Amino acid sequence: MKARVSIIMGSTSDMPVMEKAAKTLDSLQIPFEIHALSAHRTPEAVEKFAKNAKAHGVEVIIAAAGMAAHLPGVIASMTTLPVIGVPIKATLDGMDALLAIVQMPPGIPVATVGINAAENAAILAAQIIATKDQKIADALVIYKENLKNKIEQANEELKKITFAFKTN
Amino acid sequence: MKARVSIIMGSTSDMPVMEKAAKTLDSLQIPFEIHALSAHRTPEAVEKFAKNAKAHGVEVIIAAAGMAAHLPGVIASMTTLPVIGVPIKATLDGMDALLAIVQMPPGIPVATVGINAAENAAILAAQIIATKDQKIADALVIYKENLKNKIEQANEELKKITFAFKTN
Amino acid sequence: MKARVSIIMGSTSDMPVMEKAAKTLDSLQIPFEIHALSAHRTPEAVEKFAKNAKAHGVEVIIAAAGMAAHLPGVIASMTTLPVIGVPIKATLDGMDALLAIVQMPPGIPVATVGINAAENAAILAAQIIATKDQKIADALVIYKENLKNKIEQANEELKKITFAFKTN
Amino acid sequence: MKARVSIIMGSTSDMPVMEKAAKTLDSLQIPFEIHALSAHRTPEAVEKFAKNAKAHGVEVIIAAAGMAAHLPGVIASMTTLPVIGVPIKATLDGMDALLAIVQMPPGIPVATVGINAAENAAILAAQIIATKDQKIADALVIYKENLKNKIEQANEELKKITFAFKTN
Amino acid sequence: MKARVSIIMGSTSDMPVMEKAAKTLDSLQIPFEIHALSAHRTPEAVEKFAKNAKAHGVEVIIAAAGMAAHLPGVIASMTTLPVIGVPIKATLDGMDALLAIVQMPPGIPVATVGINAAENAAILAAQIIATKDQKIADALVIYKENLKNKIEQANEELKKITFAFKTN
Amino acid sequence: MKARVSIIMGSTSDMPVMEKAAKTLDSLQIPFEIHALSAHRTPEAVEKFAKNAKAHGVEVIIAAAGMAAHLPGVIASMTTLPVIGVPIKATLDGMDALLAIVQMPPGIPVATVGINAAENAAILAAQIIATKDQKIADALVIYKENLKNKIEQANEELKKITFAFKTN
Amino acid sequence: MKARVSIIMGSTSDMPVMEKAAKTLDSLQIPFEIHALSAHRTPEAVEKFAKNAKAHGVEVIIAAAGMAAHLPGVIASMTTLPVIGVPIKATLDGMDALLAIVQMPPGIPVATVGINAAENAAILAAQIIATKDQKIADALVIYKENLKNKIEQANEELKKITFAFKTN
Amino acid sequence: MKARVSIIMGSTSDMPVMEKAAKTLDSLQIPFEIHALSAHRTPEAVEKFAKNAKAHGVEVIIAAAGMAAHLPGVIASMTTLPVIGVPIKATLDGMDALLAIVQMPPGIPVATVGINAAENAAILAAQIIATKDQKIADALVIYKENLKNKIEQANEELKKITFAFKTN
Repeated sequence: MKARVSIIMGSTSDMPVMEKAAKTLDSLQIPFEIHALSAHRTPEAVEKFAKNAKAHGVEVIIAAAGMAAHLPGVIASMTTLPVIGVPIKATLDGMDALLAIVQMPPGIPVATVGINAAENAAILAAQIIATKDQKIADALVIYKENLKNKIEQANEELKKITFAFKTN
Repeated sequence: MKARVSIIMGSTSDMPVMEKAAKTLDSLQIPFEIHALSAHRTPEAVEKFAKNAKAHGVEVIIAAAGMAAHLPGVIASMTTLPVIGVPIKATLDGMDALLAIVQMPPGIPVATVGINAAENAAILAAQIIATKDQKIADALVIYKENLKNKIEQANEELKKITFAFKTN
Repeated sequence: MKARVSIIMGSTSDMPVMEKAAKTLDSLQIPFEIHALSAHRTPEAVEKFAKNAKAHGVEVIIAAAGMAAHLPGVIASMTTLPVIGVPIKATLDGMDALLAIVQMPPGIPVATVGINAAENAAILAAQIIATKDQKIADALVIYKENLKNKIEQANEELKKITFAFKTN
Repeated sequence: MKARVSIIMGSTSDMPVMEKAAKTLDSLQIPFEIHALSAHRTPEAVEKFAKNAKAHGVEVIIAAAGMAAHLPGVIASMTTLPVIGVPIKATLDGMDALLAIVQMPPGIPVATVGINAAENAAILAAQIIATKDQKIADALVIYKENLKNKIEQANEELKKITFAFKTN
Repeated sequence: MKARVSIIMGSTSDMPVMEKAAKTLDSLQIPFEIHALSAHRTPEAVEKFAKNAKAHGVEVIIAAAGMAAHLPGVIASMTTLPVIGVPIKATLDGMDALLAIVQMPPGIPVATVGINAAENAAILAAQIIATKDQKIADALVIYKENLKNKIEQANEELKKITFAFKTN
Repeated sequence: MKARVSIIMGSTSDMPVMEKAAKTLDSLQIPFEIHALSAHRTPEAVEKFAKNAKAHGVEVIIAAAGMAAHLPGVIASMTTLPVIGVPIKATLDGMDALLAIVQMPPGIPVATVGINAAENAAILAAQIIATKDQKIADALVIYKENLKNKIEQANEELKKITFAFKTN
Repeated sequence: MKARVSIIMGSTSDMPVMEKAAKTLDSLQIPFEIHALSAHRTPEAVEKFAKNAKAHGVEVIIAAAGMAAHLPGVIASMTTLPVIGVPIKATLDGMDALLAIVQMPPGIPVATVGINAAENAAILAAQIIATKDQKIADALVIYKENLKNKIEQANEELKKITFAFKTN
Repeated sequence: MKARVSIIMGSTSDMPVMEKAAKTLDSLQIPFEIHALSAHRTPEAVEKFAKNAKAHGVEVIIAAAGMAAHLPGVIASMTTLPVIGVPIKATLDGMDALLAIVQMPPGIPVATVGINAAENAAILAAQIIATKDQKIADALVIYKENLKNKIEQANEELKKITFAFKTN
């Protein structure tokens, strides 16, 4: 099946974090592909990927990188597809990656999510696809319902804890 | 004409920054609307807006806020539309707004752009719409071409400066 | 017994930190309740809770959240009860949560305590209740006396250490 | 009339910021007093004030300070009244004052509001008093209603701006 | 023997860090005392200590504290003796303690050393005493000679490592 | 008259800030000298100064520098006199200078005061000299008394302002 | 004359800062060229420049950029010439640009100088060229001598100021 | 064989980080030496080294230091050789060392690499030497080729992972 989302990471050491993006897309039944492409070590491969992604049917790109994280911005400069940037925590608590991804110059935005927020990158990709695909829109409604159910269940359990205190 | 993008700001004092988003969408011929809605002062209006936006034909929401900037995240929690967050610089160089917008919990992403980056919010909205609208995709290609032309022209002018130095 | 303080947390993963608030209120014999309510996942439940808290006899609300911590501010926007915010350390040493809680816009204050400072949230709640309840005011005097005694005892033990050094 | 709120500032140079607190309390018809007392220059006066405030009828203390802002914490250590801390922006964008006020040790909380947030300090004081004074509670409901009206009016004006753009 | 230096800490949990100060003073044969006194929990004891230290023969005070670290500044406000402040790392990498100690208002300086820099606090105390005590001045010269010897020895060992590489 | 305090600055552009140190020492009748010596541009002059300061009768050195502020630490490495470091605000709000001065390695302390805190540097120098010079100790008592008087006067004036509000 | 140093900037708005680099190279009689090339707007031009610079006789590249400053790193990934990065202050005091330039991944260093430090970039370029060009090495010795002379002169003037104070 | 690169570190505790620089130079067959020299503990040895390095045939100096990291700047002030600075992470995530190294005053640049980036320091040294030594230039081309191969291999392996997900 053709990938609708590309997950690109600068190094395979980002895989433990980005796996969550893959699992989330999978659970929403959105086909995806994963590539390791480095803005600095394989600039030609990045260029080839970015310039052809749209023609290959990709609709959204998720790009993850740490430190002086140039990958999402470099890809964004070579395509008109929306690029979601995931700052990876490697040094300085991920603050270097966050700033290097989000503070893009006018004209070349990167849709930045939180530090190590791979799941949110996948949900954002799904939300973008859902603007034209009702099936994915429906899947997102169910996903959000599940989030709600989990916290409502948690709330029920907390009530029991409260009863254990002597003044209540 | 029906708005495809909603620009929401927490306070009219954000208008001088967000005006750029309106102008950019206008230049790309994407119909939009602007609302002042505060997550903290008019929570009911925010809820009403967020829950009905999709049904009203809105495809992407741009939400701008400063300081403890909750507006983009609160809207994102009430819709499955993609929400683009613009951190407004009001205190602490905008770092408080950036963190309050980008560091969302799992399941509720906000597509964050740079501090005061209203133009980039508009371009990102256009890129999302362009995934299904070839006319906007074409407009973006022209927009990027213009960015390129401007810097190429600048480069030509710099060459003249260089000649003015004695050792060259 | 009716709760005078509500402890609200965005996620049950905050419970190990917030437990200290429960224990402190319990030791001061102030009845309380605990809820897990998420500003982003269960906005309706948050609204229902916040709008009815005062009518249910709640006098102070303690709200804990991490990252882009919107919960305390969102609750504060829906009640005139004092809301105490506890920034939970999850990422960036808790600095994101601190700024997202304390930097509220004019009109909607959150009484912010230190990062993970659950015990201080409980003491602050007690101090607010003590402005009209002499029994709690008396309990706080004893609590402060105990703080003093503990450090005075510590001081006695340090004196013995000093004697062990050769030049003293 | 006897002061129910004391506004304490470390230096008269904080008055331009703290004036807003006085005006807000005044508009809510809460009697208050203002003192300039320095934790470091007049420690005895701070002690005398803090130890007697409750007996003099004060219900809430607002303390403002900049830089290594010790004043709110030092007052909090000498009373069981709730102390609201206002970090004043003097150096480092006010971050030094914020941390020096909010990061109090266990047992001695300061209810911290945002940097220079004098109005919010007054509203928080009113919310604390309102837990036992229905008249102030009613005044706060009206105050919040006004906040809402102002932003709704702003929203109406923004709609006119939108119409001025060519694609709408 | 009468203490010439007082080491004051806000909590006995600071002892593992401050022990180094005691050992360093001991090795320089400077008599000292250690107290646990909290600016917030035992303000009266702090006041009594600070106001009498000079009369008791103390020449320099070392004060250590973490978080919203008020202890060094509060002591400095009650004596004309030099006060050395040691920011203890407890939260935020010790940055909160550093700013709360070093950013004192005009007129009340605290001689701040690095985060957890207990040894340097002791050396600075010795340097102050050495301005009038030749024996301590001589001990400092020997101490500095030892620092130099240690690194010269380290340098010798590094040369052997270099020889192990193939190209040298 | 022989200088008891040396004020060293890395650049004459620091003079507008450091002038305050000169004036404060002057008002306390402590003889001083001022030098512009750069750790990086005139290392030999720094070395010559630092190694001879004690023999020339200098008792305390005040060293001011901005950015990667090495001057205080470099001087401290070449003398056993106490060195007071003043971080000058030039870039990054002075945070670079603060860290480059205060975070010294074990064995070579710099007594750091706040950013641009030239007056405090002078007072700290006076406090060090006062440990052996009763006349300076007396002058410091008067200086502190003046600080107190100024704020007490300010307090009197604030009382008048309070009376101007309608609810008091 | 053929350029030995290329000064590249991401935007002509960086020219007021980078002019200093041009003037410094000019004063050292090192031929240079200036280009405006954007990593994000003209990626092809950047690639063409970077891949051919060495063949065109360029020995060192100076690249300046602000915000999410990718330009120096992107150039460094396409050449084995040393690349000097100048973080330009545009937002967040230049901290975003500094981190986005200096925190490069293993294998692709950028020789980073201080924020807006255009003169230092030129001197560093000269130092690199001087490792093989004795004439430039000699020019650098004279340059450093001038730095020294300027501060020595400043020192002479400061001595006069000192004499104006009454206690000296 | 004569050293072309000197690796200087302020403390042998930096060796585990800096070893990587030695190994990288070794793999590129660039002769080097390692010294432990402290800007603060052995200033004379630093001076002797810096002033003679060029005459001894050294072409580039790599200097590593943590905290208030003065070593690279102090060496740079005493030579016209290019000095590469490596900020060592010891406290504050290495931010103190980064700022103390990179923010040098005009005229005395340090070529700063990332926090703990010892390998990049070696590559940068090689790039500087390669401006006049074709053999090293060739070795760098091979080194970069290897970086590329490693990530291309990683990409191949990622493709297999993608196939394991059910929707692809």
